[in-house]
Amino acid sequence: MIIIGENINSTRQKIQPILGNKDTKELAKLAKRQAKAGAAYIDLNCATLLDREPEILTWAIGVVEAETGLPVAIDTPNAASLIAGLDAAKNRPLLNSITLEKERFEAFLPVIRERKPQVIGLVMSDAGVPESAQDRIDNARQLVDALLGAGLTHDDIYIDAVVAPVGAGPERGPMVLDAVEKIRAMGVHVSVGLSNVSYGLPYRKLVNRAFLACCMARGLDTAILDPLDKEIMAIMYATEAVLNRDEWCANYLQAHRDNRLNMPESVNT
Amino acid sequence: MIIIGENINSTRQKIQPILGNKDTKELAKLAKRQAKAGAAYIDLNCATLLDREPEILTWAIGVVEAETGLPVAIDTPNAASLIAGLDAAKNRPLLNSITLEKERFEAFLPVIRERKPQVIGLVMSDAGVPESAQDRIDNARQLVDALLGAGLTHDDIYIDAVVAPVGAGPERGPMVLDAVEKIRAMGVHVSVGLSNVSYGLPYRKLVNRAFLACCMARGLDTAILDPLDKEIMAIMYATEAVLNRDEWCANYLQAHRDNRLNMPESVNT
Repeated sequence: MIIIGENINSTRQKIQPILGNKDTKELAKLAKRQAKAGAAYIDLNCATLLDREPEILTWAIGVVEAETGLPVAIDTPNAASLIAGLDAAKNRPLLNSITLEKERFEAFLPVIRERKPQVIGLVMSDAGVPESAQDRIDNARQLVDALLGAGLTHDDIYIDAVVAPVGAGPERGPMVLDAVEKIRAMGVHVSVGLSNVSYGLPYRKLVNRAFLACCMARGLDTAILDPLDKEIMAIMYATEAVLNRDEWCANYLQAHRDNRLNMPESVNT
Repeated sequence: MIIIGENINSTRQKIQPILGNKDTKELAKLAKRQAKAGAAYIDLNCATLLDREPEILTWAIGVVEAETGLPVAIDTPNAASLIAGLDAAKNRPLLNSITLEKERFEAFLPVIRERKPQVIGLVMSDAGVPESAQDRIDNARQLVDALLGAGLTHDDIYIDAVVAPVGAGPERGPMVLDAVEKIRAMGVHVSVGLSNVSYGLPYRKLVNRAFLACCMARGLDTAILDPLDKEIMAIMYATEAVLNRDEWCANYLQAHRDNRLNMPESVNT
């Protein structure tokens, strides 16, 4: 699994001052912990900093790359911030994200064509979040064609199937799962942001874990999540092992040896 | 999900004396706890009691049915015990299990034809445990045809896809998952005994949970497990919710209200 660490987001109360005050030490610590926990990309969202977003993003990318050696995911709806981020990044970054919404699509596509970052495409349009699996698949097809047309390869493209809360409509789980399978069959990466699935339910993280395993069983190869959540990472490693995506369970066993599975002793009986 | 509670088994050290001494009070307690935890069938395995198996099974079925009102799964390789069990059962029981092994097949099929219990068919033959998904599917086809020929309906038939340890061969997880999907498409129930998947790995129960969610995402509708293991039941309820097998998450919410999900508080954040 390709993990995009979603931890550094200015909408989070604990994170906003670290970004706002350019606290290099704390930001480096946050990034390093995610890298150690298995993130392949460190997502940086500075959107609530408004006018300062491009400046803060430029600084943050420098800190995160220097500390971890990992590429960042530039998480912004703003083309000026995207360009600032692309200028700052030494490693090839991931844009999070383009959609089919006309304004965002037209602002981002020329930048993508010129600078060729890897890209997450969200299956949303001006009609909002799709209400069916087929609409998700159709939107994905349009995004993939546009991104290939802009000069990206299949391997550069991550399609986010846009999770919907099952508590608000029980057909929403299978709808996303069907889309995951069909989009993966297009030869691109398929991603989800998990946590929305459990909105409104008790024990949300339990629902998120179950949904991650189900998505992986249907072809999901990327997830946007907090890699510091040891329980979600534990079910991820275990699921890779049973799906033969972890040869001879090597990553699972390594995570166990490193005490990263963080389970109570009762799990061993 | 249809849960076959596997708890009452004479090979377990704590259970053997309860069965051997015909401890009605303790057996009733064990059965009642499983019924309360969500079992649809109470599995009874008295095989280590040898010559006393038919007698003990007869007594145990009476106790379990009187206490819970549930049907039992008669878990025996022995035709005499099966017949004793069928004579004792008031509710239509489930035979656990027939296989394609010649001796067992020929001993059980006439009894099935005459008495028509529901039946679990294990996809094993005299060649042993199948080494591929296709062999599992072929064995399942033969079992389904034989059981339909003996007068059972599709709904009476449970095919156990026979789980193999992923630690001993990484392709064994997907092999079972592919078989689960194809066997379910035959219109019969598909079951697994989960715990074998994690044999030889640390934190076995974590692997079992991940595999249960994956099997359910591929069509599993029945499992032989210990319903008193609250963590496996929690992931089962959560997976039903995300797969739209639990309308409006009603069972999930009820399990939460009953404190049956048994999660640490951190799962709620």
